[in-house]
Amino acid sequence: MIQPIDEYFMREALKEAEKANEMREVPVGAVVVSNNRIIARAHNQVEQLQDATAHAEMLALTAAFGHVGGKYLTSCTLYVTLEPCCMCAGATYWAQLGRLVFGAYDPRRGYGTMGRQLLHPRTEVTTSVLGEEAARWLTHFFQYLRC
Amino acid sequence: MIQPIDEYFMREALKEAEKANEMREVPVGAVVVSNNRIIARAHNQVEQLQDATAHAEMLALTAAFGHVGGKYLTSCTLYVTLEPCCMCAGATYWAQLGRLVFGAYDPRRGYGTMGRQLLHPRTEVTTSVLGEEAARWLTHFFQYLRC
Repeated sequence: MIQPIDEYFMREALKEAEKANEMREVPVGAVVVSNNRIIARAHNQVEQLQDATAHAEMLALTAAFGHVGGKYLTSCTLYVTLEPCCMCAGATYWAQLGRLVFGAYDPRRGYGTMGRQLLHPRTEVTTSVLGEEAARWLTHFFQYLRC
Repeated sequence: MIQPIDEYFMREALKEAEKANEMREVPVGAVVVSNNRIIARAHNQVEQLQDATAHAEMLALTAAFGHVGGKYLTSCTLYVTLEPCCMCAGATYWAQLGRLVFGAYDPRRGYGTMGRQLLHPRTEVTTSVLGEEAARWLTHFFQYLRC
């Protein structure tokens, strides 16, 4: 059962994914929430920045550190439209992220391929929030690339 | 048998670790080399930037992308004084890094705890280059913290 508040914030992450799509980036978006307020938002910018580490999650987490003025995000939730990769999961580990909510699973490069232990043991996880919608953006994008 | 050129560039990475140490950061340093020239260098700046993702490798890779003007580092070597964590290993995956050379093993948080598959299959790996020296910096640092 998806909580309305999770759906609300995931829709904000989807808006970020849409921005990535408009920039011809792989459409993934993320927001970081603290006390029911968005403190950081970002979309994938790998092509624009020509930086393979510029995933939506990495950019959103770095912005969130700046907002909280500290290197831990223990009371924050990261909403991201796609299951984080190992790099991004590793970043949430170091941040001691309070909660991770993601949309679509990534069976090829998601952290789940390596196991839950990539995340911090205290990070709560909620999956498949608006996952079909997130996956639709990705499918459209890759279909477009193949044209 | 350590190659003199690997020792040379690892000493440059150790100089970066020393800078981190002076800033009271966990002493880890990295350089990225292309065609036998250093194109990027960085040290751990987690405390200074209050950003848990500001590991030496992440900062060096992002600088290297800027130098080559592209999102792949297939003909580059990353020298880093400590075995990369899962986040940093994931970053080298996306960069399709040509070669990784590291000093000391990190039995707690090194990517090796999760397996070689965190790296790109085409990334060559050389370990234990001046590893004892790199480990000495880390030991001193953590002894100092405990005082």
